[in-house]
Amino acid sequence: MMKPAVVLLSGGLDSATVLALAREQGFACHCLSLDYGQRHGAELHAAARVAAALGAAAHRVLKLDLGQLGGSALTDSSIAVPTAGVQPGIPVTYVPARNTIMLALALAWAEVLGAGDIFVGVNAVDYSGYPDCRPEFIRAFEVLANLATKAAVEGRPLKVHAPLIDMSKAQIIVQGARLGVDYGLTVSCYQADAEGSACGVCDSCRLRSQGFAAASLPDVTRYQVNVI
Amino acid sequence: MMKPAVVLLSGGLDSATVLALAREQGFACHCLSLDYGQRHGAELHAAARVAAALGAAAHRVLKLDLGQLGGSALTDSSIAVPTAGVQPGIPVTYVPARNTIMLALALAWAEVLGAGDIFVGVNAVDYSGYPDCRPEFIRAFEVLANLATKAAVEGRPLKVHAPLIDMSKAQIIVQGARLGVDYGLTVSCYQADAEGSACGVCDSCRLRSQGFAAASLPDVTRYQVNVI
Repeated sequence: MMKPAVVLLSGGLDSATVLALAREQGFACHCLSLDYGQRHGAELHAAARVAAALGAAAHRVLKLDLGQLGGSALTDSSIAVPTAGVQPGIPVTYVPARNTIMLALALAWAEVLGAGDIFVGVNAVDYSGYPDCRPEFIRAFEVLANLATKAAVEGRPLKVHAPLIDMSKAQIIVQGARLGVDYGLTVSCYQADAEGSACGVCDSCRLRSQGFAAASLPDVTRYQVNVI
Repeated sequence: MMKPAVVLLSGGLDSATVLALAREQGFACHCLSLDYGQRHGAELHAAARVAAALGAAAHRVLKLDLGQLGGSALTDSSIAVPTAGVQPGIPVTYVPARNTIMLALALAWAEVLGAGDIFVGVNAVDYSGYPDCRPEFIRAFEVLANLATKAAVEGRPLKVHAPLIDMSKAQIIVQGARLGVDYGLTVSCYQADAEGSACGVCDSCRLRSQGFAAASLPDVTRYQVNVI
């Protein structure tokens, strides 16, 4: 029987690649997405398509309205998404404690499933200045997880896999292409429209499009007609 | 101006005492409760009453359906709440990763508020065998929090206060009584009825009632008529 793993799946390019990598390692992938009040539902639809296309064992979407706490352009419609290019420092699209929350939810499901493996698509290279995408953050979460759970108390360790952490966007795309990931199913844009078409000018679109170019692969992203 | 703090407030006896202690230390207390699909809403109503009675600066209830992930008698109505007395080991009322999730949400709000202090009512003495109530768990979360956030990156540390961690239930009650906490407003029972009346026989009721007895204080808990 395949060992279960929990894979955090956002619907974007990175987590789709992580799912393909986890499947390649032989895990039965239980994909978890968070509906946290992001501006559009397109990325959650993308997550469902990606989970199906890559043979996930299960896919759950947990709803949690982080917009109630405010503070991010991704959950607060009164804060504009920047489109002028990637700037130094932590951008307003940073969602407070998002990866801590996502990993905590993954930990809960892992515990219920009896899974000893969590996969997350954080990346420290093209990480856009988010503090919770750094290797030391992931290691600290793994330490916490191994103190937090019934499994840990009973001596079954939990491993947090962040296979993209040292890869460039181009390297991630090359890995996914090797594993047959259809990036046309994924949505990375911070302000995609209802159909999942991308704006082309937010930080996430810029990093993604530069990644395809650097990988010398065609950019399969669907862009909104009015911005391109 | 009073410094803001986030206080995790469940509606039970412990977190009400923590709120009183945080207020005594001069914090403007932003209370956070989680509606995680627990069997009854009585404890959330209790949390609102306690927040108002103890002068909280704000109270938010975040909804997150942990029942979707299963695995606990507190969120899965097909698992019975044990009533035969406290047993060794981790009970079925354990909610997977609950304190990790609650602290992650508190961290998100702390970051939005610019708060450097989180208060949580975990307790390692009468802790009912939950792994995420131990001091080493709290310390590991504090390490994680100081790597996870924009504030940490900018050099403003975050402190996780667990003032009850070494107290017996009786000591907690004595502290709360000193600070004027009305424990009649609180609900600890795992299977309280809609009015918040307690069953008297679940682990949480037993620990609470023993606490009042050991503190030589009257047990102000309202019990269900049919079980007492």
